[in-house]
Amino acid sequence: MKKIIYLLITALALGTYSCKQVEAKDKKSDGIIRTDIPKRPESQKDMVGFRCEPIETVRVGFIGLGMRGPGAVERFTHIPGVEIKALCDLYPERVEKAQKILTKKNLPEAATYSGEEGWKKLCEREDLDLVYIVTPWLLHTPIAVYAMEHGKHVAIEVPAATTLEECWQLVNTSEKTRRHCMMLENCIYDFFELTTLNMAQEGLFGEILHVEGSYIHNLEDYWSAYQGNWRLDFNEKYKGDIYATHGLGPACQLLNIHRGDKMNYLVAMQTKAVNGPAVVKKTTGKDSPNYQNGDHSLTLIKTENGKTIHLQHNVVTPRPYSRMYQLTGTEGFANKYPSSSYTFRPDNVSNNVPDHENLNAHGPVPESVKKTLMEKYKHPIHKELEEKAKKVGGHGGMDFIMDYRLIYCLQNGLPLDQDVYDAAEWSSMGELTRISIENNSMPVEVPDFTRGSWKKLNGYHHFMKGE
Amino acid sequence: MKKIIYLLITALALGTYSCKQVEAKDKKSDGIIRTDIPKRPESQKDMVGFRCEPIETVRVGFIGLGMRGPGAVERFTHIPGVEIKALCDLYPERVEKAQKILTKKNLPEAATYSGEEGWKKLCEREDLDLVYIVTPWLLHTPIAVYAMEHGKHVAIEVPAATTLEECWQLVNTSEKTRRHCMMLENCIYDFFELTTLNMAQEGLFGEILHVEGSYIHNLEDYWSAYQGNWRLDFNEKYKGDIYATHGLGPACQLLNIHRGDKMNYLVAMQTKAVNGPAVVKKTTGKDSPNYQNGDHSLTLIKTENGKTIHLQHNVVTPRPYSRMYQLTGTEGFANKYPSSSYTFRPDNVSNNVPDHENLNAHGPVPESVKKTLMEKYKHPIHKELEEKAKKVGGHGGMDFIMDYRLIYCLQNGLPLDQDVYDAAEWSSMGELTRISIENNSMPVEVPDFTRGSWKKLNGYHHFMKGE
Repeated sequence: MKKIIYLLITALALGTYSCKQVEAKDKKSDGIIRTDIPKRPESQKDMVGFRCEPIETVRVGFIGLGMRGPGAVERFTHIPGVEIKALCDLYPERVEKAQKILTKKNLPEAATYSGEEGWKKLCEREDLDLVYIVTPWLLHTPIAVYAMEHGKHVAIEVPAATTLEECWQLVNTSEKTRRHCMMLENCIYDFFELTTLNMAQEGLFGEILHVEGSYIHNLEDYWSAYQGNWRLDFNEKYKGDIYATHGLGPACQLLNIHRGDKMNYLVAMQTKAVNGPAVVKKTTGKDSPNYQNGDHSLTLIKTENGKTIHLQHNVVTPRPYSRMYQLTGTEGFANKYPSSSYTFRPDNVSNNVPDHENLNAHGPVPESVKKTLMEKYKHPIHKELEEKAKKVGGHGGMDFIMDYRLIYCLQNGLPLDQDVYDAAEWSSMGELTRISIENNSMPVEVPDFTRGSWKKLNGYHHFMKGE
Repeated sequence: MKKIIYLLITALALGTYSCKQVEAKDKKSDGIIRTDIPKRPESQKDMVGFRCEPIETVRVGFIGLGMRGPGAVERFTHIPGVEIKALCDLYPERVEKAQKILTKKNLPEAATYSGEEGWKKLCEREDLDLVYIVTPWLLHTPIAVYAMEHGKHVAIEVPAATTLEECWQLVNTSEKTRRHCMMLENCIYDFFELTTLNMAQEGLFGEILHVEGSYIHNLEDYWSAYQGNWRLDFNEKYKGDIYATHGLGPACQLLNIHRGDKMNYLVAMQTKAVNGPAVVKKTTGKDSPNYQNGDHSLTLIKTENGKTIHLQHNVVTPRPYSRMYQLTGTEGFANKYPSSSYTFRPDNVSNNVPDHENLNAHGPVPESVKKTLMEKYKHPIHKELEEKAKKVGGHGGMDFIMDYRLIYCLQNGLPLDQDVYDAAEWSSMGELTRISIENNSMPVEVPDFTRGSWKKLNGYHHFMKGE
């Protein structure tokens, strides 16, 4: 343990009294822990802004029909220009159940696959354009890589990858095979988030300086619903913000990450694990002396353009659900949890007699103003899909919008709303935060998964037909 | 710039697929930046739990009668067993104005002091027990040290110190002179905070794992109210969370800091400065090319017992006022901003059919339950003082409770609610966060200002007569 000694050097004269500030003596490094960035093979190019030929009818195969899969199949029956060609799960009875979603609607039956290797056979089919992956987390990358290597575009539930190695596998495979690799981050399509993104892009908040996001969701009633206890197992074996994408996705879109800005480094910290091991005991009857994940995790991220991101993760203590969506701009502020509101320059404080006792003077705009603003700045995607999305459902409609956009962009040969670098960046938080936590919260570099192409696009953009 | 290379070492088999995790190769240090901790002179003892002889009538002198001072004088006229003996300010007209507060109530006139050296003369008086310091920040420690060296107890507005050197000056002077040194952190007495502390001490939240606090207050209408522009000047010249005590105070009391736990290290990060320099331009007409403080600052703190604290600071962007008071415990959750609420184990979710689509299922208790709880767990201090405090006022009553408790403890020879180590710990954030920010958010040790005595007391406690 090396003790870095500080010397009193600077004497800053301020007012009558001088104040000494300490400064580092023998600084040898910038302190940032860096992980290995594999060199891009010369034969590969980046996938920033990647488009492929329009696909008039998108032929889809689904893998994973347990918790989220059947809902996805159902939603796809509402999207025009789609053929559901294949269904796969470890268990044949689940496949049969999903098949009934199709037959009930008089749609052609899909080919069916099951068992440990079923997903490989599905990926090997010649008549698929897209493989939609809704399995437990540890199968996401292996299946996605296999599918891309067999010529398919892929859509992967969150997180797309569980380690840095897997993040690089996705990036390299997508670049090599020239196939889309989209993570199914649904929260970026939620109504408040997308409206606020639109307001941000229209400049209402000035320059955005700081954003927040989280996954705070007390899962105590849900653990048993995960097949073979895989989700609790993962928390038992992995340390860090292992489920960051719901909070980070909307945050990165607001900051135009790898579209003009990039995440440089992060620091992470977590509490000890108290409720986590108790849940294992309650669920399995066993003690968990090596339980890894702390009950509450915190992450701070610094970007190249001087912005900050704050993330939190907590799935084991009694708290209200929160994705903590929040933005701080030079001209305004937005937040969603526990209640959504917008704040702009205060006009309800007298400039002549500031009242230091009234600490609520700078408050959000009234509900009526909020409503008017949200109507005025409704995103074109919502304008088009709002009614249908609410009818089809899936987390209040955002799941349908996500699926619809994926198919729409494939049909029109457009760049997808989320590219493989989003998938890698947002998923990389799990392991990057673990490294920081295991090293007393030292800063850890967020790898530039675009390997130099993060300035190619100028701002985040949803592409529309004809663009 | 030394690049730390990481190797793929661990292959964690989990489920069917193995996931490699990276691990540090040549770790030479724990990465934590440490500042110098001066050795305690052999003649000194710590001040943990310090009591002095009861003072039946507390004779007070006030220094600083600009913004917060006159209100303090007014409040002290409502406290029994107090004599206001001396009043001091740079400007004589302010002293005269404060004198009128006394004469209006038919109280004896106080001795008056003004000019650059007035405060020294006040401190040198023989007939004072307590010097109450309400000056601009940079005078806090110099005056407090001088007053203690002249045998007076001191109460100092927040922050008590602006650098680590000043923090140690307060600690060493208090230990050497055996005089109380209390910072005037008022937010710990606010109704929701003190009630929630009481609930926490009664075990309602289980073990407290994580706490939050902040100072988010858009000062754009207030800057001109600070004499000689000192507050904006300070933000221009100092980087970091320079005003952390309102958020950190209540957080530290919940975690029993230096009463069984201690802060070990912190990491800090901030956005670039955009609005800060713009405020300087607007206020002074001058450019500010070396403006120091970022617009939004974030700090994470890890404690010895595995807890975490999250702090934020922002005084320049349009946001609703927030001290972000929040606690996460193993059995419950409390938060105050933007609206106060409590959450405990959910009883509104069916155990049989968890609904993954209903993300609001784990919500706070209804208002009626909250009201009942807050009445049941009202703190003894509030029970005694609530009505009077609301009548006397000062930030909704908390200022009066703070003053009352200070005098009450002095009159009864009790340890004060805030000791010199609280003052040093809470004030040290300014410089500690600056060091972290200037070193890419590297972890920085929070010095143990008690120099080994942080376990002497078992939990935070408000002492009452007879204890």
